[in-house]
Amino acid sequence: MTDILKNETVAFDEAKNALVIIDQTKLPGKIEMLSLTKQEDIHKAIYLLQVRGAPAIGVAAAIGVYLAAREISATDYNSFYIQFKKAKDYLASARPTAVNLFWALDRMERVVLGNTQKNVDEIKNLLKDEAVKIREEDIAVCRAIGENALSLIKDGDGILTHCNAGQLATVKYGTALSPVHLGHEKGMKFRVFCDETRPLLQGARLSAFELAARGVDTTLICDNMASQVMKSGWINAVFVGCDRVAANGDACNKIGTSGVAILANYYKIPFYVCAPTSTIDTAIESGESIPIEQRPAHEITEMWYKERMAPPEIKVFNPAFDVTPNSLITAIITEHGVCRPPFKQTLKQCLK
Amino acid sequence: MTDILKNETVAFDEAKNALVIIDQTKLPGKIEMLSLTKQEDIHKAIYLLQVRGAPAIGVAAAIGVYLAAREISATDYNSFYIQFKKAKDYLASARPTAVNLFWALDRMERVVLGNTQKNVDEIKNLLKDEAVKIREEDIAVCRAIGENALSLIKDGDGILTHCNAGQLATVKYGTALSPVHLGHEKGMKFRVFCDETRPLLQGARLSAFELAARGVDTTLICDNMASQVMKSGWINAVFVGCDRVAANGDACNKIGTSGVAILANYYKIPFYVCAPTSTIDTAIESGESIPIEQRPAHEITEMWYKERMAPPEIKVFNPAFDVTPNSLITAIITEHGVCRPPFKQTLKQCLK
Repeated sequence: MTDILKNETVAFDEAKNALVIIDQTKLPGKIEMLSLTKQEDIHKAIYLLQVRGAPAIGVAAAIGVYLAAREISATDYNSFYIQFKKAKDYLASARPTAVNLFWALDRMERVVLGNTQKNVDEIKNLLKDEAVKIREEDIAVCRAIGENALSLIKDGDGILTHCNAGQLATVKYGTALSPVHLGHEKGMKFRVFCDETRPLLQGARLSAFELAARGVDTTLICDNMASQVMKSGWINAVFVGCDRVAANGDACNKIGTSGVAILANYYKIPFYVCAPTSTIDTAIESGESIPIEQRPAHEITEMWYKERMAPPEIKVFNPAFDVTPNSLITAIITEHGVCRPPFKQTLKQCLK
Repeated sequence: MTDILKNETVAFDEAKNALVIIDQTKLPGKIEMLSLTKQEDIHKAIYLLQVRGAPAIGVAAAIGVYLAAREISATDYNSFYIQFKKAKDYLASARPTAVNLFWALDRMERVVLGNTQKNVDEIKNLLKDEAVKIREEDIAVCRAIGENALSLIKDGDGILTHCNAGQLATVKYGTALSPVHLGHEKGMKFRVFCDETRPLLQGARLSAFELAARGVDTTLICDNMASQVMKSGWINAVFVGCDRVAANGDACNKIGTSGVAILANYYKIPFYVCAPTSTIDTAIESGESIPIEQRPAHEITEMWYKERMAPPEIKVFNPAFDVTPNSLITAIITEHGVCRPPFKQTLKQCLK
């Protein structure tokens, strides 16, 4: 079981020119590495959540678009750019909500746009360097978030988390779970409660898996048990990841996060959002403007089940994300430090 | 699909001396009626939730204990009572939280205790009459709760419900869903959102099933989507059932109910608890003293799944119920009327 933790979630196989990912849809039952070279397969991997978690998606897309660029046969800049742009837009269409996807692809595009004088082969090499750099930065950023988050908790604390913003959502360490992994390395003991996170069960399949594999004291609960767990006095802090933070601090994350924030607020428990600065989208004033991906009904009604668990033809509402208003967030933890309200100011300072 | 609605959830087959129930663990895939005569099977049916919902459990236990009494061969009162008491205690041990179970069994015991001068055959006949009466009263009580609840909503309203406090939780009509069923009969149109209610999915399997079968506009959501649905402005009122109400109005109901109440409070949506007076336990001051049933881990980790959806050996917390504090309850709706805070006074008046 622990072997998987030695792998990094998203890797670049230079010898085979492949994006290598852990197929997260198979966890925790099967540990299966996918080696992807075709754009269709990389797009599908993002759409189907074989690779998921905002930071991991960003890194996968960066490597993916480099692999696309590599295949472009055009030798003049303009033809190359047109084809690069097409590949970029195709990958960007895989999921609408996580800003890291666009952030990473835009960063790759800037390499092309900033080197109009170079020949295509040189640009391809620069794209490769940039993808590798994005990936390495992700590891460093997650580690820094973990260190910053550790300043907010103490040994023995009870922590609740929703979905998976752990190692499996990034290249390594995770965002929301980075303090737990780092603290555990330092010999600290936390008691972590994982919301199972319906419908795709990332909490049960991924967070509980990666924490238990490390030997962290981990308890799995259904999403609707968080209130009872908080009421019992077992939780000192809530840590969640996020897919996009607006300029005012509104945070878009896995569906159910806003409900957890409302509960934490009611029980007076600090609610922390862990966000690499790449997740902060200052182009968006407030969370109201973040597009929310709607996913298919079968994820709720039959996806995991031995038999259909809801009546046929039942209408289903299946938003993948919700927005937690800034008023419910105690602090947003980035790699540059801990931002507290008013977020409009502190996030801006943090991005400088 | 609609056939099931013609059956009543719990019935007494006089010809066969059997308790007849719809096996709710098989819904919505299969409609299977169980005809139970043995005490072990009736105990198992309650424990395994083949019959569930506080009022339905009470009726099933009343019929069950009559069937046990019928089999007692003793002809002297004392021997009969000792054996009756043993049968009663056995059924009472099937589930610890729902007070209707004890309420119905106590009511049956009072028939024995109040007729010490009668011979055993006469007492058996009185027990049969009492069980039939408890069952008929349940239908009338649910209808009255529905009428009272209808005074609080209007045509076109959006309603959110948790778990199943519908027709399938009672003999007929339901408690929380009684206003929807009655309103629908009167030609009113509601839009109902059903929390799927993990881990046993009573919302998906039972509430969505019985409402859609009646032609009510029904949308299934995961429990963690309730916040987003409320935020969208789609909900005018929340209706839930309950398993036990303390003297101060604290209400014990399916796990997750307290979380829904906290969300409703945050979004300023009225939160109504529908409770037959048999559910009100004035012997208990506050919800703190209500024992909460803990259920096995496999219900969360593998019960419904094609394959195990959580790591092996993972620790699980699986409380079946939680307590919603009275401060979050807008009103408790009984068959005698709508009780508003302060519940300590209004519930007492209601019980007179």
